[in-house]
Amino acid sequence: MKAPFLLWGIAHVTLNAIKTVAFVSLTSTSNYSNRKCSATHVSFVATCVSLSGTAAAAPAGPAFCERCGAPMISRIPSGDERARYCCTDPECGFVSYQNPKVVVGAVCTWEGRVLLCRRAIEPRRGRWGFPQGFLELGETTRAGAARETAEEAGADFDPAGATLLAVYNLSGAQVQMVYAAELTSGEIKAGVESLEVGFFAWEKIPWEDLAFPTVGWALEYARDFGAGSAVQQRTKYVDGNGEWRVEDG
Amino acid sequence: MKAPFLLWGIAHVTLNAIKTVAFVSLTSTSNYSNRKCSATHVSFVATCVSLSGTAAAAPAGPAFCERCGAPMISRIPSGDERARYCCTDPECGFVSYQNPKVVVGAVCTWEGRVLLCRRAIEPRRGRWGFPQGFLELGETTRAGAARETAEEAGADFDPAGATLLAVYNLSGAQVQMVYAAELTSGEIKAGVESLEVGFFAWEKIPWEDLAFPTVGWALEYARDFGAGSAVQQRTKYVDGNGEWRVEDG
Repeated sequence: MKAPFLLWGIAHVTLNAIKTVAFVSLTSTSNYSNRKCSATHVSFVATCVSLSGTAAAAPAGPAFCERCGAPMISRIPSGDERARYCCTDPECGFVSYQNPKVVVGAVCTWEGRVLLCRRAIEPRRGRWGFPQGFLELGETTRAGAARETAEEAGADFDPAGATLLAVYNLSGAQVQMVYAAELTSGEIKAGVESLEVGFFAWEKIPWEDLAFPTVGWALEYARDFGAGSAVQQRTKYVDGNGEWRVEDG
Repeated sequence: MKAPFLLWGIAHVTLNAIKTVAFVSLTSTSNYSNRKCSATHVSFVATCVSLSGTAAAAPAGPAFCERCGAPMISRIPSGDERARYCCTDPECGFVSYQNPKVVVGAVCTWEGRVLLCRRAIEPRRGRWGFPQGFLELGETTRAGAARETAEEAGADFDPAGATLLAVYNLSGAQVQMVYAAELTSGEIKAGVESLEVGFFAWEKIPWEDLAFPTVGWALEYARDFGAGSAVQQRTKYVDGNGEWRVEDG
């Protein structure tokens, strides 16, 4: 932070006031941007989209530099082709890159039946899904899916045996990777984010009561093709009229 | 930013001075954390690892709140299980989630030969790889792989026809998704990050002169199994002795 102290303070407070307007509408999602996907991914993506009105919508960028605290602006850095959030302090020069996040989950089976969790949290509280959530630093995608399964359903599988079932791109903001895995036992227990957990025969799955479309896609794909087949690849996005669309590409 | 102005300023400057020590060693990678994967991913991951000495290493977190500019600290937020970077201003309360990033690339073929690019940038300048880079907001994984191919080799393929070939987890910091794709023509042209581009018969691939191990893995897998087979899943990490290891899990 190299700017004179008083000027910096004024600029900081002024920008803060300006940014408050933008942040009010984002507050409910910004805090949750990496919370359980199962809890927030639909509202998160939907909010991103509604704010910009395009399928390529993104969360608002940083207002202040995470390295030096100076205000950030959106501009195209030297040698780049697209706008990034850049520090206004030329001696800092930090560029904040915003990228899609990875969500990992698993369609888990035990003796031919599928593990589902009934959501204890909004959105879609009371509806059914499989364990999933944001990939954390330091873990692999398969290990992340296993962690979510343990957290939400008290169930275990060997990550090394998990097979990639599907990749869903959600509105350019999220990459969902869904694995298929056989549990190591039939022991399950609802975690704090689940009202209840249970095993369902394929013909007993509550298709009309699933939390998100992606849950239905992955379940149908697992039922019809199973692990080891080609990876299903789908994209869900908002078109120019604000309508949700799905394409395979 | 609710702290009294003078106190805030003093705290800000003091923290800035303290943080400078930590940032010096990170500067060369922080700025590049989302630049071309092909240019920096090895040094980026290696730096993360060398800083913490574990396979679960992560970039240093933000020193200042991107929303309000207040200092950040690492603590476990209420309702969470792991430490996050949290704003010290209780009225802001912003939590900054750090996550692995997605790298997309493609093993592209044209009339049975493979497209490779010789790197014009460090690290591994002069060595060979296929087009790849960080996934951007607003694009799908397949579209991102196609964009990188156009940028680095002036070559085109239809994203909808690309097949997922491999998923590589790199040290808990990066998820690489490599596609297999047939180009729509044999026209290629070196981009600014390529010294030259060319098509190689499988037996003519410069195996000893590839830029990164992941390049070799994907090429061998494409050669031996081709698109449409099961997705290869590998993890590259640093063990407790600082040695790179590879496991399939």
